[in-house]
Amino acid sequence: MISVVILGSGNVATHLFKAFKKAENININHWYSRRIDAISSYKNDVETIDDLSLINDADVYVLAVSDDAIAGLSSQLPFENKLVLHTSGSVSVYDIDKKHKRGVFYPLQTFSKEAQIDFENVPICIETIDKKSYPTIKSLALAISNVVKKVNSDQRKVLHLAAVFVNNFTNQLYRIGHEITESQGAEFDLLKPLILETAKKVQDLSPFKAQTGPAKRDDKKTIRKHLKLLEDQHHKDIYQLLTNSIQRTHGRKKL
Amino acid sequence: MISVVILGSGNVATHLFKAFKKAENININHWYSRRIDAISSYKNDVETIDDLSLINDADVYVLAVSDDAIAGLSSQLPFENKLVLHTSGSVSVYDIDKKHKRGVFYPLQTFSKEAQIDFENVPICIETIDKKSYPTIKSLALAISNVVKKVNSDQRKVLHLAAVFVNNFTNQLYRIGHEITESQGAEFDLLKPLILETAKKVQDLSPFKAQTGPAKRDDKKTIRKHLKLLEDQHHKDIYQLLTNSIQRTHGRKKL
Repeated sequence: MISVVILGSGNVATHLFKAFKKAENININHWYSRRIDAISSYKNDVETIDDLSLINDADVYVLAVSDDAIAGLSSQLPFENKLVLHTSGSVSVYDIDKKHKRGVFYPLQTFSKEAQIDFENVPICIETIDKKSYPTIKSLALAISNVVKKVNSDQRKVLHLAAVFVNNFTNQLYRIGHEITESQGAEFDLLKPLILETAKKVQDLSPFKAQTGPAKRDDKKTIRKHLKLLEDQHHKDIYQLLTNSIQRTHGRKKL
Repeated sequence: MISVVILGSGNVATHLFKAFKKAENININHWYSRRIDAISSYKNDVETIDDLSLINDADVYVLAVSDDAIAGLSSQLPFENKLVLHTSGSVSVYDIDKKHKRGVFYPLQTFSKEAQIDFENVPICIETIDKKSYPTIKSLALAISNVVKKVNSDQRKVLHLAAVFVNNFTNQLYRIGHEITESQGAEFDLLKPLILETAKKVQDLSPFKAQTGPAKRDDKKTIRKHLKLLEDQHHKDIYQLLTNSIQRTHGRKKL
């Protein structure tokens, strides 16, 4: 049995709470948040607290708070020499106060209040500068996920950066698709199967092999038509830049 | 029973052939290709031909050929007053020779040799300038798909354009994610659940509501870190432009 204290009240904290709660070999001692109202709806499932001095002894303390809050909160913790993990993709493990045993527990997924997440398939990237803590972190991760990966700081930071491309930027392309279709009274819904298939395709095929379309074919006529059709200069810029990017990748343009 | 002749040998032609073949109320009279070798592996399933003069009478002729070939091939067809459809998202229905009854049968999906497609969920956008042909086109579409939509030319063109954003450009963002991770010896595979979740999320939630990340939060520190981490100026440009785009959408920047 691993005993855990969760700190934070955002989406990552909430999804982690639910996953830890379901896991057989994890006991959640407390859930701490500065703003106890934010987690009050869970008060029948776990002891919620907003006073750091009330935190009792646990095997692991998980700081699921915003990047900027990690350093401060870790130094306010009224104990030392315990295993303290943060969940951020981009913050250094050294941001955690050095009075603790320090590590990272980074779930590589997009979390929002609205969407249910099946944690079993969420890759957990783990890292520690206290080698003896590694088995505990690994057990904690394996208790909720089938995909647990030891990564170093550089790899974690680059995964976080790549996640912005494949998640936030991709979602913005969906948004632009939404704007463009609605502007002509066409239904965005008609694009949904394509969106899903595009994502499914690269589960087995490399993105390089999966590519199709006018940019890859260097179909100048269609590219010209599309640029003419786009009314917003900003959308034109994105079309041009990503078309160039595809053509660089597929050898249509010199680097 | 609707009798069909397929013309063309590319991915769309091949996937349509398979879907028509499976449908109960469709009979494929012939499959024509200029390059008969390209379709010879199907010669036991259908009569393959490479001579237009051999084409016999059918209810519908489906031109699943490249955009540039539609006009020429349609005028070479040795008959008139029959229903001839093209499958392109961006070509005008008037590109088909006016000696025919003309229409469009545009399956809004990405087709590649490697990936199996479940046609039932592929939206088929249909259009015709011969109103009497509409029921035949609709029956043909409903024989292979549950999602059949009448769209006008402007809507079809804009759907095709939006498809480039949500499919080709999105796939290029996956490619960049691949390049960035591999450059640090991190595994692209770890991003695959995130890619899938990002696509699943917008099946129920609008892309506007689904957005998360540093650009939306206006988290300047993370954005600065990411730009510093990117080695390729071209990747930096894409990062900057899409970050601006998200900030325009979410009110962080003046338009």
